[in-house]
Amino acid sequence: MGEKKVIITISREFGSGGHSIAMEVAKRLNIPYYDKELIKQVALKTGLDSNFIEQMGEYSTTSIFDFFNSYGARNDLMNGMNVNDFLWVMQRQVILDLAKQGSCVIVGRCADYILRDDPDAYHFFVRADEDFKAERIVRLYGESDKPVGERIKEKDGKRAANYKHFTGRKWGMCECYDMSFNTAKLGIDRVVELILEAIK
Amino acid sequence: MGEKKVIITISREFGSGGHSIAMEVAKRLNIPYYDKELIKQVALKTGLDSNFIEQMGEYSTTSIFDFFNSYGARNDLMNGMNVNDFLWVMQRQVILDLAKQGSCVIVGRCADYILRDDPDAYHFFVRADEDFKAERIVRLYGESDKPVGERIKEKDGKRAANYKHFTGRKWGMCECYDMSFNTAKLGIDRVVELILEAIK
Repeated sequence: MGEKKVIITISREFGSGGHSIAMEVAKRLNIPYYDKELIKQVALKTGLDSNFIEQMGEYSTTSIFDFFNSYGARNDLMNGMNVNDFLWVMQRQVILDLAKQGSCVIVGRCADYILRDDPDAYHFFVRADEDFKAERIVRLYGESDKPVGERIKEKDGKRAANYKHFTGRKWGMCECYDMSFNTAKLGIDRVVELILEAIK
Repeated sequence: MGEKKVIITISREFGSGGHSIAMEVAKRLNIPYYDKELIKQVALKTGLDSNFIEQMGEYSTTSIFDFFNSYGARNDLMNGMNVNDFLWVMQRQVILDLAKQGSCVIVGRCADYILRDDPDAYHFFVRADEDFKAERIVRLYGESDKPVGERIKEKDGKRAANYKHFTGRKWGMCECYDMSFNTAKLGIDRVVELILEAIK
């Protein structure tokens, strides 16, 4: 690369296209995109199952987590913490380590908050109007028993609760991000261009 | 012009540079920028004083306004409304009329909410980190008796209360805007470029 280091965090509403945007930005910049890889590293560090981390690392609330306190986490590392706080500490450390290693794109997992004081980091929030998200969700993930509006509400509600619990901040406030985008208005391709332009 | 119509609303934190950005965007697009002109039109419609409208049209809360219920507004038009609701109705009508006339840039005054269903409208929110705003405010407007942090809190607090009262929405949430910007990170010039790129 030889270029200046850049850490990009992308927070996103369910169905907004934030995930596709993150992958495309990483590809265009030729830098790593952390999602499954991040989870694998957290699994290695904690001894917890990848599927469990994937669900709980972003959608937990204390009440759900209390239920899992006797799950299979490595008790020697947990040192009396309950499993949600333990996972938070480990996930935070993995994110800080990845950001130290070099340029990358990280999606979700409160990375905007964890890296809020990193001078090389840009924090983006991707949202969209309800109709746009509903159409995309049904097209990409198919129908389910629940109406799509309810699926959005549930998934983003859990993200917001998890974010509030661990950061004390309100999810989706402009003050948490350097830029936010409405993909319904701007289009996914244009948001990719705008992010590349912003970090130049 | 001959180009497609575009309405740009810019909401901004005190000291963020949103006002300079709005003026520069209007200049670059060669379209009207409404601030004083909007107030003049509201004054004509209502019989209220321009200074009063400038203050109360954006910084009112119900409690402040109740005090002014016997101010000099034209009672034939007010039709039993108190003066804050009356001013809101008139200001809203002026904004809708201006947007109908053609491309323009409108700053503040809940224009993002009033024009939320206008397909030609783009809604932007300009914010900045605290230090950046404090430095700009002292440089541009000078010192005052109050610490600059308090001045920011007071002015933006009134904007947020006014916004909440008339729109029911929380000021500064990503969901109210098509894009938001942190000028401390991006720089004022780059935000101008990003807005021009976004509406292309």
